[in-house]
Amino acid sequence: MKPLVSIIMGSTSDLPIMEEAAKILNQFKIPFEINALSAHRTPQQAVDFSKNALSRGVKVIIAGAGGAAHLPGVISALSPLPVIGVPIKASISLDGWDSILSILQMPPGIPVATVGLNGAQNAGILAAQILAVGDNQILETVKAFKAGLEKKIVAANEELSKIKYEFKVN
Amino acid sequence: MKPLVSIIMGSTSDLPIMEEAAKILNQFKIPFEINALSAHRTPQQAVDFSKNALSRGVKVIIAGAGGAAHLPGVISALSPLPVIGVPIKASISLDGWDSILSILQMPPGIPVATVGLNGAQNAGILAAQILAVGDNQILETVKAFKAGLEKKIVAANEELSKIKYEFKVN
Amino acid sequence: MKPLVSIIMGSTSDLPIMEEAAKILNQFKIPFEINALSAHRTPQQAVDFSKNALSRGVKVIIAGAGGAAHLPGVISALSPLPVIGVPIKASISLDGWDSILSILQMPPGIPVATVGLNGAQNAGILAAQILAVGDNQILETVKAFKAGLEKKIVAANEELSKIKYEFKVN
Amino acid sequence: MKPLVSIIMGSTSDLPIMEEAAKILNQFKIPFEINALSAHRTPQQAVDFSKNALSRGVKVIIAGAGGAAHLPGVISALSPLPVIGVPIKASISLDGWDSILSILQMPPGIPVATVGLNGAQNAGILAAQILAVGDNQILETVKAFKAGLEKKIVAANEELSKIKYEFKVN
Amino acid sequence: MKPLVSIIMGSTSDLPIMEEAAKILNQFKIPFEINALSAHRTPQQAVDFSKNALSRGVKVIIAGAGGAAHLPGVISALSPLPVIGVPIKASISLDGWDSILSILQMPPGIPVATVGLNGAQNAGILAAQILAVGDNQILETVKAFKAGLEKKIVAANEELSKIKYEFKVN
Amino acid sequence: MKPLVSIIMGSTSDLPIMEEAAKILNQFKIPFEINALSAHRTPQQAVDFSKNALSRGVKVIIAGAGGAAHLPGVISALSPLPVIGVPIKASISLDGWDSILSILQMPPGIPVATVGLNGAQNAGILAAQILAVGDNQILETVKAFKAGLEKKIVAANEELSKIKYEFKVN
Amino acid sequence: MKPLVSIIMGSTSDLPIMEEAAKILNQFKIPFEINALSAHRTPQQAVDFSKNALSRGVKVIIAGAGGAAHLPGVISALSPLPVIGVPIKASISLDGWDSILSILQMPPGIPVATVGLNGAQNAGILAAQILAVGDNQILETVKAFKAGLEKKIVAANEELSKIKYEFKVN
Amino acid sequence: MKPLVSIIMGSTSDLPIMEEAAKILNQFKIPFEINALSAHRTPQQAVDFSKNALSRGVKVIIAGAGGAAHLPGVISALSPLPVIGVPIKASISLDGWDSILSILQMPPGIPVATVGLNGAQNAGILAAQILAVGDNQILETVKAFKAGLEKKIVAANEELSKIKYEFKVN
Repeated sequence: MKPLVSIIMGSTSDLPIMEEAAKILNQFKIPFEINALSAHRTPQQAVDFSKNALSRGVKVIIAGAGGAAHLPGVISALSPLPVIGVPIKASISLDGWDSILSILQMPPGIPVATVGLNGAQNAGILAAQILAVGDNQILETVKAFKAGLEKKIVAANEELSKIKYEFKVN
Repeated sequence: MKPLVSIIMGSTSDLPIMEEAAKILNQFKIPFEINALSAHRTPQQAVDFSKNALSRGVKVIIAGAGGAAHLPGVISALSPLPVIGVPIKASISLDGWDSILSILQMPPGIPVATVGLNGAQNAGILAAQILAVGDNQILETVKAFKAGLEKKIVAANEELSKIKYEFKVN
Repeated sequence: MKPLVSIIMGSTSDLPIMEEAAKILNQFKIPFEINALSAHRTPQQAVDFSKNALSRGVKVIIAGAGGAAHLPGVISALSPLPVIGVPIKASISLDGWDSILSILQMPPGIPVATVGLNGAQNAGILAAQILAVGDNQILETVKAFKAGLEKKIVAANEELSKIKYEFKVN
Repeated sequence: MKPLVSIIMGSTSDLPIMEEAAKILNQFKIPFEINALSAHRTPQQAVDFSKNALSRGVKVIIAGAGGAAHLPGVISALSPLPVIGVPIKASISLDGWDSILSILQMPPGIPVATVGLNGAQNAGILAAQILAVGDNQILETVKAFKAGLEKKIVAANEELSKIKYEFKVN
Repeated sequence: MKPLVSIIMGSTSDLPIMEEAAKILNQFKIPFEINALSAHRTPQQAVDFSKNALSRGVKVIIAGAGGAAHLPGVISALSPLPVIGVPIKASISLDGWDSILSILQMPPGIPVATVGLNGAQNAGILAAQILAVGDNQILETVKAFKAGLEKKIVAANEELSKIKYEFKVN
Repeated sequence: MKPLVSIIMGSTSDLPIMEEAAKILNQFKIPFEINALSAHRTPQQAVDFSKNALSRGVKVIIAGAGGAAHLPGVISALSPLPVIGVPIKASISLDGWDSILSILQMPPGIPVATVGLNGAQNAGILAAQILAVGDNQILETVKAFKAGLEKKIVAANEELSKIKYEFKVN
Repeated sequence: MKPLVSIIMGSTSDLPIMEEAAKILNQFKIPFEINALSAHRTPQQAVDFSKNALSRGVKVIIAGAGGAAHLPGVISALSPLPVIGVPIKASISLDGWDSILSILQMPPGIPVATVGLNGAQNAGILAAQILAVGDNQILETVKAFKAGLEKKIVAANEELSKIKYEFKVN
Repeated sequence: MKPLVSIIMGSTSDLPIMEEAAKILNQFKIPFEINALSAHRTPQQAVDFSKNALSRGVKVIIAGAGGAAHLPGVISALSPLPVIGVPIKASISLDGWDSILSILQMPPGIPVATVGLNGAQNAGILAAQILAVGDNQILETVKAFKAGLEKKIVAANEELSKIKYEFKVN
């Protein structure tokens, strides 16, 4: 099955963060591919990737990078597809502020849909929500997932209600 | 024609920023609606809006807010639709850092596709890119727009090349 | 005994921080309840909680959350009760700046009484001070607590005075 | 009528900000007093004020200050009353970050209920909410105020709905 | 005369800042060219420019950009020449922090020689210092310029010494 | 009369800020001198100044600078005299954060007594307090000045007490 | 021997930082005292201490505190003596930014001589430099200490010169 | 062989960071020297070093420092050579922001070519790029190094392509 979502990262050291996007897409049964591609170290591949993604059938791109994180913006400049940017708090990164700002603050005309620091899972969910715009089955998956979020906190709350503080039960 | 994009803002004082989203959607010939809705001042309307947007035919929501900007996140919590958040540097806002962080840093499960500070135009373009996932006509519009970006800078560059500095032309 | 203070948190992972509020209320013999409730994952419960707290006899709400921390503000929007917000430096949080700003910078009309980062103990004390406005017994408890603060530092100082540096006693 | 709320400010240059607290209390028909008092320039008066406020019948203190803003914390150290702190972006202030942090980050035992930068109106509302804990008439006032917030945004929205964009009405 | 330094900027709106680099190179009699080139709006030109600069005889590249400023880094990725980056506090820029961090924090292997915010004059001087490594005439120019810096402040100091304060001359 | 305090600044453009130090010293009748001296543009003079200040009879040095503000630290490295640093929010400065951090964060062994941003008046007062350690007349001047601070705020408060709010006087 | 320097700290947990001031004063053979005193928990003692320090023969006060660090400023408000403030990165502190800003940004009239984060050793050296204004023996100690700084780095450099890199010695 | 690059650091504790510059120069077969030199602790040596570096045959200086990092700027003030500054996140440093700002924000006339936090490897590469302006053999080395960057990420990508996610291969 052709990948609908292409997950790319600036360095394979970002994999522990970025695979959260893969896991959620896997759980949602949305076909994806995952690759390392650097705006700086493999610029030509980044250009080729960006120009060909649409014709290869990719619908959404998720790009994660740390430090001066140019990858999401560079891809957005070269492809008409929606690009989701994941700022990564990598060892090179200044507590993540550098990746957040260099992904978020794109100039007019070249948007990047930025998620929170290390927010690869949310990037995967957002990709599903975007695909759901043209796919009712994925829409149902998203709706079911959202309903499930509630269950977890309700269950947790039951645990919480068992905690007793000395005075509480008077 | 039913709106495909719903633009909402936390306060009508945000209109000068948020109408940039409306203008670009208008230019792209994508039907939209525009409303003020506050997560804090009209919480019930915000809930109703979020729950009904999908069934009303809305495909993408653009939400802008300043300060402790909860609107995009609250809507994302209540709707399966993709939500684009626009942080606004309003008078209440601490140079925009508060709106950026309170829109961007959403918890796992509830993504907001955040654009740059006051980036309503990019929010409109991103909405078009998302719609283009299921609509080839919009995809062609997006591609044409991207091609146009280049022309402007090429023209500007021609202007630039006419500037002469004393030594430059030896 | 009906709870006068309701402690809520965005996630049960915030319990180690938030139970400091419970402990101090317990020490002050003020009845309280403690629950997890998410502005994002259980939005309807958050709405119901906020609307019913007053009629259930709750007088003060303490709400803690990390990251894009919307819980205290959302509750304040829906209840006339005073809401104390506790910014939490959780793993999702950008060193706590995001939770501080998204709790503190509320728009006009919907205040949140914000305490310092991870300041749940201070939230509990503040709740007691608020209750003391209409309850002389709690006022006496608060006054006794404040007097006790001094004793601890005086005792610590006695320890300190025993430290000898080589030259000090010449 | 004896003041229930005491508004104090570090410098009379803070009056344009702090009088927003006075205005809302006035609108709520809650008696208040307003004074300038500096933790640094009139330390003895600040001590005397803090020690006597409770016995003078004051129930809530609102203290605003800019820069290294010590006034709210110093008062909280000396009085059992709830103290609401208003960080002020004054000319001496480093974009307001200094006043926010020096009011918010109080040590355990001495809470200050901090509101947003220049948030004196919210401080006034919060004071009313605190008084409402022991006063049903003020509670009704607060509830009516909250209901009124909604009306303003609904009215604004009607204005907004009259804006026509070229394509919007097809 | 072939340009030794190529000044590029992300947008012609950056010209008032970037022409300070041109002016100092002009004063140093170092041939240069000046162009607008966007990593995002004209990505192919940016690639072509970077790949051809060396063979066209350019020795140093000065690149300025604001916001999520990718231009200097993208050029550095594609050219072996030293690239000087000028962060620009443009209207899109978040007080300049975004441009500073997205230029400075480059990953290992692709350095950008970053100067201070809006520091185009220093970029020009640095370019001259780099050229001076292989050109004694430029080295003499740089040395003369440095000597001249001192003269200005000595002259200013003479002005200063004429200011009289009331008590100063007793 | 020989100057006891030497006020230096990195650039004459800092004079409007730094003359506040001169004015207060003048008011305190403490002899001073005022000069421009740059750690970067006149390094040799800065070295000479630092090495000779003590033998010329100077007791305290006040040094102000903006941006990467090295002047106070460089002088402190070369003179045994106490050096007071004044961070200046100059046009080159990044909202003053750069000058604050590059003056304050000196390494072990070379202290700079840093005052607040643009805090030249406080630098002058601190210089007087330092001189007062060995001079009873200056000590009396400082004590009188401190007493005067209180009077201003008491007078201002009288003005404040004349403001009437509608409800206040019931 | 009467203490010339009084070291105070907001909490005994600050002792591991603040004793660096004691150690250097001890090394300099300057008599000192060391106490815990809280602007918030023992406000009356802080007032008494500040008012009596001068008459007890203290010449310089060193005050360290973390979080919303009011101690140095409160003491400066109440004593004519020079007060050196040490911002402490304590567990309550927001990476130290809160203590830096609430110590540094004092209003006009009440200076605090701030040293770098956790810079207690520098506070001790600065105290010695201040005492040296009226004491030639201490001046000689300071001069000897400064000379010693150089020796350490020269020795370290000799170690460094022994490191061989493969290519270095060709 | 005479060193072409001089690596200096403010303290030998910076060696683990700064030796990355040495390693890359070694790999590039560019002769270098490495020394500790402090703007503050050995000011005279810093002056002598700066004045003599050019005549000793040094072509590029790399200077690293943490905290209030004055070393790169002070050297740049005294030498016509290009100076590369490496901000270091040392224990004294405020998360590195202080070293970044005090190296980057140099005043007009005295540029420092700043690289990212702890970016000593990039400083070494940049030094090579600068030397390559006048040396074709080094230019070839730089070009080969850049080509090698790509290979590493291509190899890493092959590893990545072997990771299988459950759904991915359908």
